[in-house]
Amino acid sequence: MGCIQSFRQCCDRPKNTNVRISLPAVCFVWQIAMIILFGIFIRYNEESDAHWIEHKTSNNISSNIENDFYFRYPSFQDVHVMIFVGFGFLMTFLKRYSFGAVGFNFLIAGFGLQWALLMQGWFHSLDPMDGKIKIGVESMINADFCVASCLIAYGAVLGKVSPVQLMVMTLFGVTLYAVEEYIILSLIHARDAGGSMVIHTFGAYYGLSISWMLYRPNLDQSKHRIGSVYHSDVFAMIGTLFLWMFWPSFNSAISDHGDGQHRAAINTYLSLAATVLTSIAISSLSQKTGKLDMVHIQNATLAGGVAVGTAAEFMLMPYGSLIVGFCCGIISTLGYIYITPFMEKYLKIHDTCGIHNLHAMPGVIGGIVGAITAAAASKGVYGTEGLANTFDFMGKWKDMMPTQQGGHQAAGLCVALCFGIGGGIIVGCILRLPIWGDAPDNSCFDDDIYWELPEDEENNPPTVEYNNHMRNKAV
Amino acid sequence: MGCIQSFRQCCDRPKNTNVRISLPAVCFVWQIAMIILFGIFIRYNEESDAHWIEHKTSNNISSNIENDFYFRYPSFQDVHVMIFVGFGFLMTFLKRYSFGAVGFNFLIAGFGLQWALLMQGWFHSLDPMDGKIKIGVESMINADFCVASCLIAYGAVLGKVSPVQLMVMTLFGVTLYAVEEYIILSLIHARDAGGSMVIHTFGAYYGLSISWMLYRPNLDQSKHRIGSVYHSDVFAMIGTLFLWMFWPSFNSAISDHGDGQHRAAINTYLSLAATVLTSIAISSLSQKTGKLDMVHIQNATLAGGVAVGTAAEFMLMPYGSLIVGFCCGIISTLGYIYITPFMEKYLKIHDTCGIHNLHAMPGVIGGIVGAITAAAASKGVYGTEGLANTFDFMGKWKDMMPTQQGGHQAAGLCVALCFGIGGGIIVGCILRLPIWGDAPDNSCFDDDIYWELPEDEENNPPTVEYNNHMRNKAV
Amino acid sequence: MGCIQSFRQCCDRPKNTNVRISLPAVCFVWQIAMIILFGIFIRYNEESDAHWIEHKTSNNISSNIENDFYFRYPSFQDVHVMIFVGFGFLMTFLKRYSFGAVGFNFLIAGFGLQWALLMQGWFHSLDPMDGKIKIGVESMINADFCVASCLIAYGAVLGKVSPVQLMVMTLFGVTLYAVEEYIILSLIHARDAGGSMVIHTFGAYYGLSISWMLYRPNLDQSKHRIGSVYHSDVFAMIGTLFLWMFWPSFNSAISDHGDGQHRAAINTYLSLAATVLTSIAISSLSQKTGKLDMVHIQNATLAGGVAVGTAAEFMLMPYGSLIVGFCCGIISTLGYIYITPFMEKYLKIHDTCGIHNLHAMPGVIGGIVGAITAAAASKGVYGTEGLANTFDFMGKWKDMMPTQQGGHQAAGLCVALCFGIGGGIIVGCILRLPIWGDAPDNSCFDDDIYWELPEDEENNPPTVEYNNHMRNKAV
Repeated sequence: MGCIQSFRQCCDRPKNTNVRISLPAVCFVWQIAMIILFGIFIRYNEESDAHWIEHKTSNNISSNIENDFYFRYPSFQDVHVMIFVGFGFLMTFLKRYSFGAVGFNFLIAGFGLQWALLMQGWFHSLDPMDGKIKIGVESMINADFCVASCLIAYGAVLGKVSPVQLMVMTLFGVTLYAVEEYIILSLIHARDAGGSMVIHTFGAYYGLSISWMLYRPNLDQSKHRIGSVYHSDVFAMIGTLFLWMFWPSFNSAISDHGDGQHRAAINTYLSLAATVLTSIAISSLSQKTGKLDMVHIQNATLAGGVAVGTAAEFMLMPYGSLIVGFCCGIISTLGYIYITPFMEKYLKIHDTCGIHNLHAMPGVIGGIVGAITAAAASKGVYGTEGLANTFDFMGKWKDMMPTQQGGHQAAGLCVALCFGIGGGIIVGCILRLPIWGDAPDNSCFDDDIYWELPEDEENNPPTVEYNNHMRNKAV
Repeated sequence: MGCIQSFRQCCDRPKNTNVRISLPAVCFVWQIAMIILFGIFIRYNEESDAHWIEHKTSNNISSNIENDFYFRYPSFQDVHVMIFVGFGFLMTFLKRYSFGAVGFNFLIAGFGLQWALLMQGWFHSLDPMDGKIKIGVESMINADFCVASCLIAYGAVLGKVSPVQLMVMTLFGVTLYAVEEYIILSLIHARDAGGSMVIHTFGAYYGLSISWMLYRPNLDQSKHRIGSVYHSDVFAMIGTLFLWMFWPSFNSAISDHGDGQHRAAINTYLSLAATVLTSIAISSLSQKTGKLDMVHIQNATLAGGVAVGTAAEFMLMPYGSLIVGFCCGIISTLGYIYITPFMEKYLKIHDTCGIHNLHAMPGVIGGIVGAITAAAASKGVYGTEGLANTFDFMGKWKDMMPTQQGGHQAAGLCVALCFGIGGGIIVGCILRLPIWGDAPDNSCFDDDIYWELPEDEENNPPTVEYNNHMRNKAV
Repeated sequence: MGCIQSFRQCCDRPKNTNVRISLPAVCFVWQIAMIILFGIFIRYNEESDAHWIEHKTSNNISSNIENDFYFRYPSFQDVHVMIFVGFGFLMTFLKRYSFGAVGFNFLIAGFGLQWALLMQGWFHSLDPMDGKIKIGVESMINADFCVASCLIAYGAVLGKVSPVQLMVMTLFGVTLYAVEEYIILSLIHARDAGGSMVIHTFGAYYGLSISWMLYRPNLDQSKHRIGSVYHSDVFAMIGTLFLWMFWPSFNSAISDHGDGQHRAAINTYLSLAATVLTSIAISSLSQKTGKLDMVHIQNATLAGGVAVGTAAEFMLMPYGSLIVGFCCGIISTLGYIYITPFMEKYLKIHDTCGIHNLHAMPGVIGGIVGAITAAAASKGVYGTEGLANTFDFMGKWKDMMPTQQGGHQAAGLCVALCFGIGGGIIVGCILRLPIWGDAPDNSCFDDDIYWELPEDEENNPPTVEYNNHMRNKAV
């Protein structure tokens, strides 16, 4: 007992936000480690190696257009935009944390994708012949996917953690992700093209658990900085729209060539369209005068893309996609109105961007929709070959039935939840240590802690509170 | 006479901008209707259905890369960006209407694309075997195209209508579009790859007619809010540039595979480049000291893309594209300088974004250019097969001559004009009814009517007028 | 001596910034010249001409998907975004020069790409049969590449030149580029897929030399306008991120079909990721309290993409890419901290955007990395066919050895340097003439000189200095 108390006391020491040693150290050491590990392990795969021209001849491939690059690169670029501009700008809504939103997002993703190539490579693309990981365009998409889960987690702790903490969070997040993904996709043989379970459920509960562990009882000292200003809301809409528009590419990026990619894009397109209408409807209903709330438009409109992730490549049917989007728009918006304040007040989980409403709930719904759709699959709807193809009933899984597959999907969802919550609690413990340079409770959500701000801002503060803040500093 | 007067009186009742019942009701009811109609009518086409693998075998298709997805999906994504970021941000230039610009654009497009899939499906892709509409990536592009015409119309009434009115406008706009498109493309057999006639001419005159019907004699009470501020102009440039850059994809998205798409992209690229120079030249000439006007840069630079829409897939020749762009840059910029004020003063048409200069005039020019180019087509330039292929002289049209085709193109332009003006007048009448929650004349162009604004804005108003406005409200 | 002095005096006459005659004249005359030259010289190539259908049959091409359009168009669109949004928004960081950054970028690129199609066409794609230049999607990419070098040069003189000077700079820049590119790629047979030498080294030294020739001794009268404001830094991040994300497309856009494009994208992706970490590390190290500087995040994070340009299509190996990115992040950030102030103080080169750190040094490094990688190439790593294919050891170069190729690469780098510095000095001389309408030293970096600014800005100036400036004007 005394031990826990002394741990708590140790954690609650006065904060020192100087990261001049720790941040460069972490960046340099980890980047050098990446170079060494890449040197040992990572090589081009047969489609990106200069031997492709010989591989083509020996495998009777008629044209360069059959290179996987042409099937997947456009989707990869769309996913890439979602990771860097989408997630980055979505979080710029805070009035004084736009630099941190875009900049730390950039840092996390830049590191995370390298570590993901290694971790995912060890599990999925290790060549038994030479012990090397062989990478190609699909590896890059998967690395971006993995990073997405860490950026989702960042949404829960936005403005409350230091860049060093974010790097640690990413290191463990990517590791956990790779293990969890291997269990769900390879061992359990669940399908999850758009990552409702693997990416969103895991990432969101990982972030929420960390936020719970890092709970700040005196955060109301920074609450005047939690809001947005007019132009920061417009910046956030850039993030929203690029996520929304490119989500069909996200959900279809690693689906099967041909009908799989095609169908996943259509389903996501439809689901997202329905979400826009129900989010706006609930947002308007929730205000006395029917006014819309930008928070809902920026976030809840995306819930349909999350929830259709698992089932996007299945024969969900166009109306099925609309139904999923319809429900998620409602649930997500209601989450912002009722659940986020509830969680903060009673569960002591502060969720800056509301990832519980945008990723956690829709992710779980997506896992369930996927399980149901898989269990309901039939040869009549898919065709004999189509069924085997869509669910990959091949090799050791060739006798699998759709109903069984439904069970496996549900099991996958549980694994994602366990890894998210369990991993988050452990990593949250580590991040409580008072060595990471995070800000005191009265300086959260403020770029001034980690960024050189333009000088002239002092002459024209965007808000009165900010002005006071600067004046106090000057005194 | 008395009847008309009492209609006018009824329409001029004091305005109530509370949309708390009407907006959610419209969103929910229409979204549920969409789900039901999709359930009855819409299925995947053979390229997005799980039976693709069997279809491939039976049709002797050698590779998945032959799936239309790989021909059109990159273009689809570019078009998607134009619809949501392009049109959305282009309209953020007003100092206090950025939320409405981006947000209502989002709402219109989210609803419109669903309704467009149905309407266009009934006319174009109804499978006679089972009475179902079969959708694929081309349907998604066409739905986005259809939505574009409604977003163009939104440009004319930006800031003066309620979201409920916009939904009604979209419902009818999409319906009219689908009929008009069917008449022009299928019955008249005109070609219009980039939609100069079908999308731009129709959409612009539809919007202008509605704006004429909704004329507000006392709009000068809101005129202090019609301008931009420095950063809102930069936001609008995001819209401009994404429209400008992706216009080659827009005009080539549904062109013929192979040379058709290739040529349409090149022609549009060139036309737009020429427009930039002449827009800037006229803009500079029009000011006493040669200063440039952001309104021209944001809008007139796009006119070349509109005007080359119909002819983009024809053998317009690179210099032909430059000439079209050259002329449209001049005409469009002169339109902003002379015609927009004229229309407002004498024709009682207030056109917030100047769509008459960006879409209506260039659209008509595009139709004419298309007719001339088609009429001048020859086997020498196109090759025998190329001519039949480009103009689709097949089936019942196989004996068509280029000169005839030119006539059909001109007929198509007339149909687009009639539908735009006629439809706009009728829909405008409906929208005059005092039940839609639009703002009074002194509160137009103000996000405060339909949006919860960030609180701290009151402490740091971007303009003095706005400050007064807020103070008056508080009293 | 007296002659030079009188030239100097002539150049130092009071400035007249009215461009009402010169800017429209230049735009119109040059655009008309383009139309005439396009009419004489430019036609569609066989893949974008309506004869494609016959060409396909006669060349035994099985499918439309073999059209180069489908290999390169997605990359083209990404490059297009980099040119217009990437470069344009990267330069919006100045507090009062966002219109000029985005708008003049638009003007330069719109003109430059037309002139580049002609210049590059004469050197590379002149059809000997009919004396015409045949263009297709690859020509459009190359034209965008050429424009990139002029936009890089613009970065050095941002805020200090008039739009007419920019047009002149672009005219000569494109011309020099085409000659230099022809010498490096065709005569010397160096490879440079991503343009480290051809685009970045040339463009940067061209811009720096011009800036040196246009040195303004009294520029400190405008120094209060050189900084950023909070939101202008966020706008600049839009540019940074779109450049960063799409750089893999830039470096792979004109690589060989198949493994060439695939490998170039992977190498660039990795190099850029490593740069992010080291840029942030050095940025944090350089400040007493470890705070990050937005200038470094906006610029230095891109250096890895520049430096991997030449070698991206070679077998640089994933760890090789990381090493390149690692070093360039460090060097580029140190450049911003130490070299830029040094150059301004001692070399009299004022470099507004720091292109020396982002393009010049990384470009030279890229050329050296390319030479080493080429010299070290072996049949073991590339395979016999792969080696010939990657380095294009065909035709008259079929007996070339990798070590020789390394020498040719180094020679190419020297040519790029000479053209950049030599061309820049000559063009800089021309631009010193007092006829181009550039601003006096106390009005640089100010949109008010060439743009109509929104009126209400006077009521709510973003900075105190700006307010004074406006008041002085009013007096």
